[in-house]
Amino acid sequence: MITPKTPPGFNELLPREQRVFNTMIDRIRMTYERHGYTPLETSAIELAQILLAKEGGETAKQVYRFIKGDTDLALRFDLTVPLARYVAEHYHELTFPFRRYQIQEVWRAEKPQAGRYRQFYQCDVDILGSNNVTADADVLITTFYTLQAISPSKAVLHISNRKIIAGFLQAHKLEKKGLEIMRIIDKLAKQGLEKTKQDLINLGIKNTNLLALLKIIKLNGSASNVLSELSKIKINNDLFTQGLNELEKIKKLLQAGGLKPTDFVFNMSIVRGLDYYTGMVFETILTNHKTLGSIASGGRYDNLVSQYRKEAIPGVGASIGVSRLFSLLKEKTKQTSATPAQALVVVFNESLLPYCFKVASLLRAKNINVEVYPSLDKPGKQIGYADKIGIPLVLLCGEDEEKKNMVTIKNMKTGKQKTVSLTKMVMEIQKIIS
Amino acid sequence: MITPKTPPGFNELLPREQRVFNTMIDRIRMTYERHGYTPLETSAIELAQILLAKEGGETAKQVYRFIKGDTDLALRFDLTVPLARYVAEHYHELTFPFRRYQIQEVWRAEKPQAGRYRQFYQCDVDILGSNNVTADADVLITTFYTLQAISPSKAVLHISNRKIIAGFLQAHKLEKKGLEIMRIIDKLAKQGLEKTKQDLINLGIKNTNLLALLKIIKLNGSASNVLSELSKIKINNDLFTQGLNELEKIKKLLQAGGLKPTDFVFNMSIVRGLDYYTGMVFETILTNHKTLGSIASGGRYDNLVSQYRKEAIPGVGASIGVSRLFSLLKEKTKQTSATPAQALVVVFNESLLPYCFKVASLLRAKNINVEVYPSLDKPGKQIGYADKIGIPLVLLCGEDEEKKNMVTIKNMKTGKQKTVSLTKMVMEIQKIIS
Repeated sequence: MITPKTPPGFNELLPREQRVFNTMIDRIRMTYERHGYTPLETSAIELAQILLAKEGGETAKQVYRFIKGDTDLALRFDLTVPLARYVAEHYHELTFPFRRYQIQEVWRAEKPQAGRYRQFYQCDVDILGSNNVTADADVLITTFYTLQAISPSKAVLHISNRKIIAGFLQAHKLEKKGLEIMRIIDKLAKQGLEKTKQDLINLGIKNTNLLALLKIIKLNGSASNVLSELSKIKINNDLFTQGLNELEKIKKLLQAGGLKPTDFVFNMSIVRGLDYYTGMVFETILTNHKTLGSIASGGRYDNLVSQYRKEAIPGVGASIGVSRLFSLLKEKTKQTSATPAQALVVVFNESLLPYCFKVASLLRAKNINVEVYPSLDKPGKQIGYADKIGIPLVLLCGEDEEKKNMVTIKNMKTGKQKTVSLTKMVMEIQKIIS
Repeated sequence: MITPKTPPGFNELLPREQRVFNTMIDRIRMTYERHGYTPLETSAIELAQILLAKEGGETAKQVYRFIKGDTDLALRFDLTVPLARYVAEHYHELTFPFRRYQIQEVWRAEKPQAGRYRQFYQCDVDILGSNNVTADADVLITTFYTLQAISPSKAVLHISNRKIIAGFLQAHKLEKKGLEIMRIIDKLAKQGLEKTKQDLINLGIKNTNLLALLKIIKLNGSASNVLSELSKIKINNDLFTQGLNELEKIKKLLQAGGLKPTDFVFNMSIVRGLDYYTGMVFETILTNHKTLGSIASGGRYDNLVSQYRKEAIPGVGASIGVSRLFSLLKEKTKQTSATPAQALVVVFNESLLPYCFKVASLLRAKNINVEVYPSLDKPGKQIGYADKIGIPLVLLCGEDEEKKNMVTIKNMKTGKQKTVSLTKMVMEIQKIIS
């Protein structure tokens, strides 16, 4: 006999959890579609050379990569790189701007730690083929309302634009160290200001440049305040100006889209770790669960698709880390039943089985979820089963009931019973369920 | 630049196809829940020793298996073995009988051929913890109604019971060759009667035994006829009698569940290729697409979980091969739009963007799926985009409209336009959409 277990670092849900999880995913789907994104799924397995075209270092180590036959394959580790590949591959079959949502699992062989698994869902929206800030605002608004639909705690978007820092670095002839500087800034929240400062000094950023840069990345607050502070900084650089303009427009559009001033902040320390971002970047913090870290993030990546295709296809997207969010919903599993069944038909003996099946069939035709107990256990055990998994109604179909074409409906919550004719059964059940 | 492509044998959908596919999956989910099955997902990656505990030979060759760190891993190739592992692993956290449905992808490195892919969805229902024929009838009825909800062609269940053949073999002291005989019979439809006969002779089945066995496996027709023919066969064997009794009960229950006599046949040549089946087995043929082969199949497997756990946990299940079924739905993609958006807000110029976002926001709050065109292209191009991807309504929000708090609704089908106030907009749009 082999001990049954999932590989280390993998997580599976029990029925109540799975039902809560699915409800969350359904709401995400609905909200994404409400904002006009179309569903897409990509292959779990990709050619390794394609998947790892840009990413190296840490990511490459975490990828599940293997040879089958003589093909070098890898499991996707996010949904953005496969999207870039998909859009490049199907360029002539798609209409641009192309906006899609994707809700699928990704795999990363991370060190197992609490709340982090090697297989988890990502929920992404992206718009490809628009370099306009309208698209940036679109993915931000969509993400905000999606979180509102599923999160038990208020979400605040932390928005920045890489062009601000990139413009600053250009103006001060520091762009060669751009990526390294971005990576240091990205760790500010984790490592604190002193360590960040020291890392920047170690990189050779000194004196006035250092002070000016620190001043920018410390800007974190209401959009109006940060914009006003940024506009005071006199940097004669197109990229910087463009970044500032884009932030101004984003502020206007988020407000027009119904977001309140407290729903988002401009936080100049947000740059995101991935190298492919070129403009707007954001993370999302839950007010009551700040230690969870960012539960939704993304940004603009104008050159990612160009690895695979000569046409310029700028993109912007946002990803929700649902598996982490789900950890906050676990409380809900207690109030959720372990089955979608709304009624259980109790089977008293074998000869009554056809009547039980008939009753179930009638109810299903009226959109009621019904289970016939699939064994010939004692009625008490069957009712106990309904109680355990949380079926709200039990239908007793004994010999008396069969003779008279009736059923006895037992409300599991109140314990009350009522015998009704088959013609009145549906109405009666709907009354109790609703 | 790297040429973007999926690995050989993998298939991805375009937006219209994906939307048709998702509608099909939604209907399957709904029908499974209507019959009281609860959703479950298992990990894509399993420990190789667990996944391959029983299966060998052909299956093992097709499995994607790889080492990560020092762990021997494999991608699931079906949903039944992972379920057996899951149920054994979570035995004390589950309530039995446990009925779950599972809709997930599986991976098999099959030889690429038309309509066969290396990644495809399976949709399974299973009941574990009941050895009663009620459960057999339950998965059959659920599968039948699910196919009715999604199939463009009438489905007929072809049902048998391995106990019939197994009982016959026992009675004639041929049970040692049982698995080999089952595998030969399984190929009857593909290889024809003569080849089957020859294979059986080569295996050493001769004379009266051969004739009697052929007589049984040729039985294929209405449940009543086959039952009457089977009851004429005088075999004094418990297993045979049990198989016959089970078929009789299944017939009664399918009819009680609303299936007509033409919805299922008893076909004694059905034994299924997998060794783990122990009782009822079935396949499903579409009347107008017989060449597609079986599009749903399954059966009873009473010993599968015992690889992983000492408690007896009998099971029965059914799997729908949706990827194959989907090939019949491709026609539908022509009538399906490439987006869930019901309206597109056309953006005339940048200064009107906030008004456009406001209009979209108002409509979304009323459950209308709206996209704001995410770029500043010419209005003609924006309307052309709506036409191409099939958005039925276009909302023109020009300067006049903004001043008067109105929108102009253009019906893309009729070409008619109507300018209405924001307060009447929702009603007007709902009227056109419905």
